[in-house]
Amino acid sequence: MKPPHELLHFLNESDNFLIVSHISPDADALGSSIALSMMLRAKGKRTILFNKDDISSQYLFIPGANGLLSMKNYGDIADKPRNLILVDCNDMKRAGLQDMDSLISDVEKIAIIDHHETDKSFGDIRWIIPESPATGIMIYYIIKELGIKITEDMASSLYAAISFDTGNFRYENTTTEVFTAASELVASGAKPHLIYSSLFEKWTANRFKLMLKVMSSLDLEEGIAIAAVTRKMFEDTHTTEDDVESFVSIPRILKGVQISVIIRETSDNYCRVSLRSKSGLDVAEIARAFGGGGHKNAAGFRMRADINTLKDGLKKKILTVMQNR
Amino acid sequence: MKPPHELLHFLNESDNFLIVSHISPDADALGSSIALSMMLRAKGKRTILFNKDDISSQYLFIPGANGLLSMKNYGDIADKPRNLILVDCNDMKRAGLQDMDSLISDVEKIAIIDHHETDKSFGDIRWIIPESPATGIMIYYIIKELGIKITEDMASSLYAAISFDTGNFRYENTTTEVFTAASELVASGAKPHLIYSSLFEKWTANRFKLMLKVMSSLDLEEGIAIAAVTRKMFEDTHTTEDDVESFVSIPRILKGVQISVIIRETSDNYCRVSLRSKSGLDVAEIARAFGGGGHKNAAGFRMRADINTLKDGLKKKILTVMQNR
Repeated sequence: MKPPHELLHFLNESDNFLIVSHISPDADALGSSIALSMMLRAKGKRTILFNKDDISSQYLFIPGANGLLSMKNYGDIADKPRNLILVDCNDMKRAGLQDMDSLISDVEKIAIIDHHETDKSFGDIRWIIPESPATGIMIYYIIKELGIKITEDMASSLYAAISFDTGNFRYENTTTEVFTAASELVASGAKPHLIYSSLFEKWTANRFKLMLKVMSSLDLEEGIAIAAVTRKMFEDTHTTEDDVESFVSIPRILKGVQISVIIRETSDNYCRVSLRSKSGLDVAEIARAFGGGGHKNAAGFRMRADINTLKDGLKKKILTVMQNR
Repeated sequence: MKPPHELLHFLNESDNFLIVSHISPDADALGSSIALSMMLRAKGKRTILFNKDDISSQYLFIPGANGLLSMKNYGDIADKPRNLILVDCNDMKRAGLQDMDSLISDVEKIAIIDHHETDKSFGDIRWIIPESPATGIMIYYIIKELGIKITEDMASSLYAAISFDTGNFRYENTTTEVFTAASELVASGAKPHLIYSSLFEKWTANRFKLMLKVMSSLDLEEGIAIAAVTRKMFEDTHTTEDDVESFVSIPRILKGVQISVIIRETSDNYCRVSLRSKSGLDVAEIARAFGGGGHKNAAGFRMRADINTLKDGLKKKILTVMQNR
């Protein structure tokens, strides 16, 4: 994976960058943007890191995540950036910038660094590699290519990004390049066990109770694992929708599970659905049938429906897709 | 980490090796022994791989694990090996060889390759590196040093060994060398997601039910997570003691947990206890107080006791150790 010359030239020759990642930023979005910003500052550039959303407290361990400009603390910016870099996303809407005129009014050039598939052609400079395991590894290659020394903070940010998007080196996207990068990041100061613990081992006791409740109601049949998380479960355990994050991966540990689905009742008769595939079966196809989308192995949708009716309908649809395979 | 010259010379110059790992072999024991055997055979040597115990079915995915000589299929060996290599263990008892005269009667020289601490000085050639994350990585360095091409089967065996002993790259022993080795093993054909899945994602539905039952009874207080697995739980879920393996790691995901303990009632009034520390607190010290032992972060003991009485006593002891820290 080699960053295009045009992108390197842009980073070398420009100044005053606005770096923005996607709304509801995860560890890859944050770690990648932060490391890019640190690297540009190490080169003497000015950068503003912005995210439309507040940073979820679970990611505040990433060095610099706390100092990110968010909707809440952004007012009039004195020296408006002329260069915008979208990181881990590839359009203005996903970046939450579609109506942020006061922030982007002076932007002249837009670069995109991302690993999400798209059929749009937005942006002046585009480096989009859908095969890349994480955007973090693309930033790593940029830093290497520009000959910048990887500091401990850059290393920790990039390690968090890569660990998150590879499920800590357990998904199919865990390549030899991932391990080579991880090796250098650890040599530069990233602490695998601490980052793992920060990313994956900070559950509250209530979240743990919710998980036990949800998994006890897991419907397991013909390689399909479906669980419904009702409003009542949230109330009983004093938890919120965010606490369901990553639950969809739990049934993976079961032998024979090919598809795992979590349905959350986000409000009365309104549901959010996450699907994961372990077997190569395309869950994006299933999500599209319900008005959603995603990747082959990870997809989702939202829909107005009774949670139990939706669960039954979804199970039927998945069975049909599996049988027609 | 550099294999000693004496060991390399022994491997280069001798023939007819008996390779033995510890009883109840895990993925590091098996992956390491198998890769060592493959490497020696690639050099034209004769090897016999032996384990006193049968190989647990969960490890049969490791290439060659199926062909290991075990107690059940070992009879009179025509050409008895003169050279014994103990892998991932460092004495005859742990290797289960203490009364296997018919197998080891012709042995003249004993080499040891291990990463477990010991105060004994058994063996003619000893390469024991307690800081090594896995024995698998020591075998990797031997193969590199001898200039043998790493085949896909060797790579998969060693990757399984290293993944297992580092908790798939999440424990404190995950070093830059671990990632460098993993990178080369993947380049040589090891498939991270398949090996991960084979090692960690083959639970039966009954085991999952047992886990939910055990975790629902988890006693969580002052950073100590203790769960008792009673005979009744095994009966209710049609599971066995083996199904409890790795449960002790589950409470790690909880914020604030410093020590995690699982007590299994193996028979009436007889218990087996596993302790894990996440905080640097020495659980071997606690295990020793109950007649057991282990490492600082992972220890255990067995004892005749009522499971609930033992649980209370253990909790009190841990609290005392934590307070005196």
